[in-house]
Amino acid sequence: MRPDPHLERLIDLAIAEDLGSGDLTTEALFPANEQGRAAFVAREPLVASGCEAAMAVFRRLDPTCRFSRVCAEGTRAKPGRRLLTVHGPLRALLSGERAALNFVRRLSGIATLASRYAEHLEGTGCRLLDTRKTTPGWRVLEKAAVRAGGGCNHRMGLFDGVMIKDNHIDAAGSIARAVAKARSRIPPTVRIEVECANLKQVRSALAAGADIIMLDNMDPTRMRRAVEIVAGRALTEASGRLDLQTIGQAAHTGVDFVSVGALTHSARSVDVAMDMLPA
Amino acid sequence: MRPDPHLERLIDLAIAEDLGSGDLTTEALFPANEQGRAAFVAREPLVASGCEAAMAVFRRLDPTCRFSRVCAEGTRAKPGRRLLTVHGPLRALLSGERAALNFVRRLSGIATLASRYAEHLEGTGCRLLDTRKTTPGWRVLEKAAVRAGGGCNHRMGLFDGVMIKDNHIDAAGSIARAVAKARSRIPPTVRIEVECANLKQVRSALAAGADIIMLDNMDPTRMRRAVEIVAGRALTEASGRLDLQTIGQAAHTGVDFVSVGALTHSARSVDVAMDMLPA
Amino acid sequence: MRPDPHLERLIDLAIAEDLGSGDLTTEALFPANEQGRAAFVAREPLVASGCEAAMAVFRRLDPTCRFSRVCAEGTRAKPGRRLLTVHGPLRALLSGERAALNFVRRLSGIATLASRYAEHLEGTGCRLLDTRKTTPGWRVLEKAAVRAGGGCNHRMGLFDGVMIKDNHIDAAGSIARAVAKARSRIPPTVRIEVECANLKQVRSALAAGADIIMLDNMDPTRMRRAVEIVAGRALTEASGRLDLQTIGQAAHTGVDFVSVGALTHSARSVDVAMDMLPA
Amino acid sequence: MRPDPHLERLIDLAIAEDLGSGDLTTEALFPANEQGRAAFVAREPLVASGCEAAMAVFRRLDPTCRFSRVCAEGTRAKPGRRLLTVHGPLRALLSGERAALNFVRRLSGIATLASRYAEHLEGTGCRLLDTRKTTPGWRVLEKAAVRAGGGCNHRMGLFDGVMIKDNHIDAAGSIARAVAKARSRIPPTVRIEVECANLKQVRSALAAGADIIMLDNMDPTRMRRAVEIVAGRALTEASGRLDLQTIGQAAHTGVDFVSVGALTHSARSVDVAMDMLPA
Amino acid sequence: MRPDPHLERLIDLAIAEDLGSGDLTTEALFPANEQGRAAFVAREPLVASGCEAAMAVFRRLDPTCRFSRVCAEGTRAKPGRRLLTVHGPLRALLSGERAALNFVRRLSGIATLASRYAEHLEGTGCRLLDTRKTTPGWRVLEKAAVRAGGGCNHRMGLFDGVMIKDNHIDAAGSIARAVAKARSRIPPTVRIEVECANLKQVRSALAAGADIIMLDNMDPTRMRRAVEIVAGRALTEASGRLDLQTIGQAAHTGVDFVSVGALTHSARSVDVAMDMLPA
Amino acid sequence: MRPDPHLERLIDLAIAEDLGSGDLTTEALFPANEQGRAAFVAREPLVASGCEAAMAVFRRLDPTCRFSRVCAEGTRAKPGRRLLTVHGPLRALLSGERAALNFVRRLSGIATLASRYAEHLEGTGCRLLDTRKTTPGWRVLEKAAVRAGGGCNHRMGLFDGVMIKDNHIDAAGSIARAVAKARSRIPPTVRIEVECANLKQVRSALAAGADIIMLDNMDPTRMRRAVEIVAGRALTEASGRLDLQTIGQAAHTGVDFVSVGALTHSARSVDVAMDMLPA
Repeated sequence: MRPDPHLERLIDLAIAEDLGSGDLTTEALFPANEQGRAAFVAREPLVASGCEAAMAVFRRLDPTCRFSRVCAEGTRAKPGRRLLTVHGPLRALLSGERAALNFVRRLSGIATLASRYAEHLEGTGCRLLDTRKTTPGWRVLEKAAVRAGGGCNHRMGLFDGVMIKDNHIDAAGSIARAVAKARSRIPPTVRIEVECANLKQVRSALAAGADIIMLDNMDPTRMRRAVEIVAGRALTEASGRLDLQTIGQAAHTGVDFVSVGALTHSARSVDVAMDMLPA
Repeated sequence: MRPDPHLERLIDLAIAEDLGSGDLTTEALFPANEQGRAAFVAREPLVASGCEAAMAVFRRLDPTCRFSRVCAEGTRAKPGRRLLTVHGPLRALLSGERAALNFVRRLSGIATLASRYAEHLEGTGCRLLDTRKTTPGWRVLEKAAVRAGGGCNHRMGLFDGVMIKDNHIDAAGSIARAVAKARSRIPPTVRIEVECANLKQVRSALAAGADIIMLDNMDPTRMRRAVEIVAGRALTEASGRLDLQTIGQAAHTGVDFVSVGALTHSARSVDVAMDMLPA
Repeated sequence: MRPDPHLERLIDLAIAEDLGSGDLTTEALFPANEQGRAAFVAREPLVASGCEAAMAVFRRLDPTCRFSRVCAEGTRAKPGRRLLTVHGPLRALLSGERAALNFVRRLSGIATLASRYAEHLEGTGCRLLDTRKTTPGWRVLEKAAVRAGGGCNHRMGLFDGVMIKDNHIDAAGSIARAVAKARSRIPPTVRIEVECANLKQVRSALAAGADIIMLDNMDPTRMRRAVEIVAGRALTEASGRLDLQTIGQAAHTGVDFVSVGALTHSARSVDVAMDMLPA
Repeated sequence: MRPDPHLERLIDLAIAEDLGSGDLTTEALFPANEQGRAAFVAREPLVASGCEAAMAVFRRLDPTCRFSRVCAEGTRAKPGRRLLTVHGPLRALLSGERAALNFVRRLSGIATLASRYAEHLEGTGCRLLDTRKTTPGWRVLEKAAVRAGGGCNHRMGLFDGVMIKDNHIDAAGSIARAVAKARSRIPPTVRIEVECANLKQVRSALAAGADIIMLDNMDPTRMRRAVEIVAGRALTEASGRLDLQTIGQAAHTGVDFVSVGALTHSARSVDVAMDMLPA
Repeated sequence: MRPDPHLERLIDLAIAEDLGSGDLTTEALFPANEQGRAAFVAREPLVASGCEAAMAVFRRLDPTCRFSRVCAEGTRAKPGRRLLTVHGPLRALLSGERAALNFVRRLSGIATLASRYAEHLEGTGCRLLDTRKTTPGWRVLEKAAVRAGGGCNHRMGLFDGVMIKDNHIDAAGSIARAVAKARSRIPPTVRIEVECANLKQVRSALAAGADIIMLDNMDPTRMRRAVEIVAGRALTEASGRLDLQTIGQAAHTGVDFVSVGALTHSARSVDVAMDMLPA
Repeated sequence: MRPDPHLERLIDLAIAEDLGSGDLTTEALFPANEQGRAAFVAREPLVASGCEAAMAVFRRLDPTCRFSRVCAEGTRAKPGRRLLTVHGPLRALLSGERAALNFVRRLSGIATLASRYAEHLEGTGCRLLDTRKTTPGWRVLEKAAVRAGGGCNHRMGLFDGVMIKDNHIDAAGSIARAVAKARSRIPPTVRIEVECANLKQVRSALAAGADIIMLDNMDPTRMRRAVEIVAGRALTEASGRLDLQTIGQAAHTGVDFVSVGALTHSARSVDVAMDMLPA
């Protein structure tokens, strides 16, 4: 598929900011028509994500670029493993190298972190969710990286899910009225989630017909109690600064989902390099 | 200043991906004409950056938004400190909250990390540089965050500096020829840097008239020796996986600059929240 | 609120195609600095929609345009009723007239048609839905017009609802497998609808855990039977060439929703004109 | 030809609004690499228009889509006739189906309606014109559909024709002065039309050297008289709520053109469906 | 009026290419909040054009910029005359200076050259036309500059006039058939011009009903003869490398128009500078 | 390489302004599927530049256009020499002709003028520079044309070089402070130039550590003296209304560079035509 208009615009920004009025070094030192070949290589263990974006960078610079041995999203790679081979005009390869790597390194970093969290949930039936704490402009890419790492996506934005919080409840007068008001205005295909800080709110949300109940910053004991109260009549999501130490415990409370903002807002890039290959 | 075209496009992407066809919750629960007031508040110690981008998000949603108590770039904030107050239509505040926070949290995260690195260089005369390992689309913002944290910017892209690496040298035949070829083609306002892996290359680069010599992955002893060889005839930059433990030692070798990719590719977001204020 | 990026682009297209290299007549006959005032006036009974878009057209031509007496979405207007008054440079008024009218006439046409359908559902508890059969580029505007006319919106696009049809079922092997496969991949905030052509499919969909069951092209007797089978365990939607004659009967079968593509794909424009007012 | 920049932008809008952050159903249920084949099939008698736009939608999603048996603009199709066959990645076919159909259905609806009007003019020498009452963003497409149905295009916008109306005449002081003022400012390639409500205005416009005289809302008797007065010294256009009942009579008065806004502002979509074909 | 979308895009390009990642000098040396005042001053005699574009540049950088003493299009200015005063943030003034000047200098250069040509036509009744030999991206601006200098505009592009040349005649078989074929397809508001290299072609074009006859590269004697042949039944345009020496003679042959490509393709910029004023 | 985003946007503008709603003549007289072949031919001696932009115009209209015998940038062409052959749909050839020619004629005009200036510098070791006095939107293209003509590029914009002028010096307090302030804020890859009106300023700039010293509007005697003072410790650039008569003398003073704004702001277009070839 051709990159969607959103990704095309992001890639245009990436190229504009890095190449600007031109790549001084490459244009000075390489002729326009020389062909080359290069590979993206993992320099540390990682879960791969972002090869499509990297290819889109190279294609944007020169549509004659060709690719082979492209890692599927979610591939686990050991150091030395090739993630992608690109063949095309040497200038396009060198000028696009950094932008393309920056995509793969960041997205694989997210996928790798997500996979570590996901491992802690194995066997619990509880699923790992991301949040909207993503890098502006990168939402779709970063959420794909989370899936690549074994997580699931929470709503993509403000348009495909309703999340009722304190200030919404205050404005409507009660959880029941907030849920009813929202229900009457949204497409029938979209569910309503209510953020609950305590068990009383859990009960109110359930009575109001909430589809999903978020247990916000609750300790495991309270989570477990909330799950009992809900008793399958709504989905439950545990949220609030869960880390690799605490996520397993949360998952064992019986919640359907745990959500972790750090997946996208605090993943470090993994080390991937571009090696030139003999043409 | 109105945001430059590049930042405007990034903000359009940020809003498009989060609001898409609309903010279901806010539109269902708040009337169009209600006004509100909110503050961005630090939840941990941080160095602030990105308030301009956050304001641009709110202005993009509604040009009548007004701001006060806006933190200057680089302000050190303790937990509880307000970074920004916004006053405007409640819908704009709630719909823009997450995108605006995502800008401030990420950029302040970079500024905060940069400030920690910069502290290690105090008194050495050596300056901290960033790299091109930035988030695609975010180059200018992230480099501003590095300055906010006390660092300096290396070249912004491929257009305002020449960096000669191995494959350029191979293609040209020698460092001397690569430097000469580049010099004859680039604007006189731009300098040439040569990446050197050993002292022999340092000597060649110096003889070739390089303006800046990068000491790539050298240990402190070798760095010190390189600085002696260069003897002020070119600028020197130490590069290669320097971290908070090793950067001070590198700085004490007498190099003019140390560059650190992690500033931008592996900073975690800092915690900033939006609190609603009494109107 | 400033128009969202999508609407801004549509308005740019509207202006580009109509003004192109300039409005020959207006520029020849009116000086640049003359001010004027005009009103949009209903010429037939209608339900108003689209004033925001019309205002955005005028503002795009000249940001100093001011508006008053702007009809709220969904206002019922008799012939002669003013929908909008605009005050600004005469050139902007005359150059923007046709594009602005084209927005209001088309969108009010949809709202008016929707209101006629909605009247047939009054007292039944059944709600009127639109479809994705909208004018490309106009989705959000046309769906707002449906709401203005008293309808509700079905999913906005392919991103905020899952709709499983024949070819999806074939590909997955069964309704159960299609539903399960989709459920495992989509955000928890999104529901799954299954298009059912007969009662057997209704039962399968229900068993598969479908959230919404579409009764596709069923006659009222079968619809009623399907509603009995579902018995509140899922939402039900009647679909398939319902018109003003047949929609009431469908609504009385007990379905939760009826959807009507004609609301957006076959509404005629209503008659609205721009009258110049004494300045 | 590649779609012009205007059409590309409209198609980007169409895809953005329908696919947004992704096609949940298709991505969940079909693998990325599966190929498919589908046909657009008329479900009622129609005059075809818009296949180019439909193809552009599919190509935008995936440039490897291929097309065959593409109906020329203006082809008369009976129910069951294929208008277009598309072959490409199944995901692109399914994700683009609705947007592509929406183009073909709407544009063929206009062509079909235009052909019905045009039939009433056969043998009269009078030609059918459209107006500027088109769907914003769709001007060029809808005017092409009118041609496909056998009509001719009036001016495309405000830039390729002058139309002098009441308020222009008031501003200039007289028809003669308005015509002279316009003539002195416009390119010599563009004609001037004057809207006339009565025979006195017809005489004035003729004396002023108008190139085209619009007979606005005149009855057939008066039209005929106006045509006698003009006597070939200018072109004549009958305008004003002509419908299928009245257009023939207008055409027989000897006017050169009749213009009909309903062609574009009130055509209903015709029924076209996409059928999957065996690969 | 806000700049039209086309001009906005051109100005975005102008700013992007000049400011790129930032104005290093200005940002280093001036604080963000300092205000300033500056004037655009003629350094040689000129006819002014382009102040609107210059203002749009400054407004694009900072919407708070204010302007006074703005020269109307076509003002004749002696050296030292102020064309425009701008007041706003000093950074915006300095960063926008060059781009804004480049607009005014180039467009005033065209207006100045056009005025010199136009002087040679005074009293002849013949009017000066431009051509489509404009700077890509600048069509509307350059044609406005021609008007500012006292010229008239030929068609703006390929959309508002038909020009039949040799290869069109060859393709159609004859002038008569080319004219007839075009007439049947174009809007009635648009005229047809035929390029004629000799008197035989002039007669054919006239017989074919051409609205405008271009006398291409004819000498004055032949032009005069052509004008006699046409005898007012069509407009006549002399074309072909006319310069300041030869244009008067051509005008005296009785042609309605002379067209001069050099107006736009070979005008030199005039000297205009920006002087800082005491705040 | 695919044209960069900036050039793509400029070409979109060029096509939009010339084709607008369509090419009336070509669409009326040529069928959509006819193929053709044409050559761009020099009509006067010239140095070629801009063929890439011309090809991008044709490709934008129809991606199936093919090219052969494409002149390299900087080729010296005698009258009659082909610069480019294009093969593709006849409609694309004719509709793109004028825009494509306008690029080649203007850019070759600049290259041709630059080559005349450059000839005067041969043997002096002094190099010819352009300035920022370029046509807005055309910076990169015009600077490439200067290189094609044998010149070198000065900084591309405000982002890749610092230029300290009078008002910067006033603001900072002295040349020394201005240079130091700038140095502390800019990337180490960028040099600082100081504009000097007299020898005292030259000495100050040198003492301040300026990298490049501009000798602004100095006479040759003073230039020579400045060069002696600088004595190789900085680069020197002569600037200020140098023309073909005076540039040689300036070059012989020993300055490293002479810069000439007229290269880009006052070059006339050269004559290039498109000839149709037998298919």
